[in-house]
Amino acid sequence: MNVTIINTGGTFNKRYNPIKGQLEVPKDNKALEKIIAACHNVDFELINVVSKDSLEMNDEDRQIIVQSVKNTKNDKIIIIHGTDTVHLTSALLKEEVKNKKIVFTGAMVPMSIDEVEATMNFSQALGFLSANIQNGTYISMHGVVVDCSKLVKNRELGQFLIQE
Amino acid sequence: MNVTIINTGGTFNKRYNPIKGQLEVPKDNKALEKIIAACHNVDFELINVVSKDSLEMNDEDRQIIVQSVKNTKNDKIIIIHGTDTVHLTSALLKEEVKNKKIVFTGAMVPMSIDEVEATMNFSQALGFLSANIQNGTYISMHGVVVDCSKLVKNRELGQFLIQE
Amino acid sequence: MNVTIINTGGTFNKRYNPIKGQLEVPKDNKALEKIIAACHNVDFELINVVSKDSLEMNDEDRQIIVQSVKNTKNDKIIIIHGTDTVHLTSALLKEEVKNKKIVFTGAMVPMSIDEVEATMNFSQALGFLSANIQNGTYISMHGVVVDCSKLVKNRELGQFLIQE
Amino acid sequence: MNVTIINTGGTFNKRYNPIKGQLEVPKDNKALEKIIAACHNVDFELINVVSKDSLEMNDEDRQIIVQSVKNTKNDKIIIIHGTDTVHLTSALLKEEVKNKKIVFTGAMVPMSIDEVEATMNFSQALGFLSANIQNGTYISMHGVVVDCSKLVKNRELGQFLIQE
Repeated sequence: MNVTIINTGGTFNKRYNPIKGQLEVPKDNKALEKIIAACHNVDFELINVVSKDSLEMNDEDRQIIVQSVKNTKNDKIIIIHGTDTVHLTSALLKEEVKNKKIVFTGAMVPMSIDEVEATMNFSQALGFLSANIQNGTYISMHGVVVDCSKLVKNRELGQFLIQE
Repeated sequence: MNVTIINTGGTFNKRYNPIKGQLEVPKDNKALEKIIAACHNVDFELINVVSKDSLEMNDEDRQIIVQSVKNTKNDKIIIIHGTDTVHLTSALLKEEVKNKKIVFTGAMVPMSIDEVEATMNFSQALGFLSANIQNGTYISMHGVVVDCSKLVKNRELGQFLIQE
Repeated sequence: MNVTIINTGGTFNKRYNPIKGQLEVPKDNKALEKIIAACHNVDFELINVVSKDSLEMNDEDRQIIVQSVKNTKNDKIIIIHGTDTVHLTSALLKEEVKNKKIVFTGAMVPMSIDEVEATMNFSQALGFLSANIQNGTYISMHGVVVDCSKLVKNRELGQFLIQE
Repeated sequence: MNVTIINTGGTFNKRYNPIKGQLEVPKDNKALEKIIAACHNVDFELINVVSKDSLEMNDEDRQIIVQSVKNTKNDKIIIIHGTDTVHLTSALLKEEVKNKKIVFTGAMVPMSIDEVEATMNFSQALGFLSANIQNGTYISMHGVVVDCSKLVKNRELGQFLIQE
């Protein structure tokens, strides 16, 4: 299977900087490395853009993501994204790109702090892309992968929940 | 989404017993607990049978697994299984049960030692079951979910690889 | 061995709050629990005061710590403290309390993110208190336990280094 | 501080081999690396001998350890050792070497499975060696560092406990 990962930052990637005493969104793919290392049946193309907490993303950043998706040759794409504005970016992608299988994912807790939730959300996307699915824009969080309009962040609970 | 997990043991579940100084297959679902806790959109039914290293499974054990699958009301089933004889049990299930979506999974390294590989293999199964897939018997390991006849353990590399 | 732990907060204790998306100093001893659980030969008295990032500690907070030390019956005391102002609090204790064995410790990376550095700094203090040492105020960080005036935080490197 | 570490194997070092499906005592110091990396105030000399589960150690192995200790220039020595026969090797060292500070340590659970207990036992030894202690042979386990004759493995509990 060929999959393009577009890593845009967000909590998924955050790492603690002991000098500054705070969590930072790095410009690398270190949070993905350990997961990818165990994916012996996938050829990944890795693209790193934006590298922001999604609260700080602007329209320009979202255009960069749209262009990155349009430029890939692969039609199977996973986008790592912050959880706070993933609904905005995924809605834009749904409108702009109709001929690919795009799965947004991310995490409520950084991979560097808890390996389970981040690995789960990302790996669900891989399993979903293994199936014979239709072109579309999806979100993979907390147990399921569904159309991006249907999985919504509940800010009180810190959970993405299906909204019927 | 409603999913039945049939936990039959295997490396996925192994835990270190400091008194005996060795890894054991416990009769509980502790290895699954942390993953399941983050699956806010899935109702799980958890069934524990056999609880063996798959090298020690016999025909009787496999019949117990077949019966467990037949008895579930859910048609989406994940079976945690040892990696050494998963090809035998999955081939049997493929013959015996035609009306469900069954995904075998497991791990080369215990969840208690490495949370990434085990979480990945299990979560791929969840993502695959989120898609509109056909009834069948599948294996979810190392990046992909495919028909159970196509993903084979390479014992030298310690990897499940697609065999065309 | 009888040891009083006075937990005043600091990076050692910080935990990620997924709802707020940031690290917090909790008012509990969760960061200590897993270490203490393996200390089968120590009777601990656990005291929780201040619970602050040490940059935010004021003179009143330091008086609370001094009083807590004076009030303990045990003469072996470990104080968990933030790294940024541990030199101030330990210098005060050195002046105010002459009849006990006080070991300050902490961590550059939260126990919830990296279990090794925090466990190391704390456990060095236990080993030091096991020896027949003189009353005094010490710091336990990064491999050694010495008089509190001699181990200084290098803010560029993020390391406590012996200053001769 | 200058410290010689003599790594003789034991549970402390064990790692899971996914190909063989079992824990092995490797001939390297990987279990120590992460701890040592945070010890900014210690110059370590690292010596690797024997590399066995201590149940399999024989008299010849113990002579190798005695010779290694006699050959070191440092008088502060930490010996990583399996827990099952550490009482035999430490008793021998106590007789054979009178002019050094020797601290035996190890773990009930491999560092590769649980970083807390192994890091704790090792780091207690560092803290103890930081104090002005007398020459002797000691054991550092589960909260304390005492003369090697006084800390005994309770095989039912899987704990080293002080025996008065």
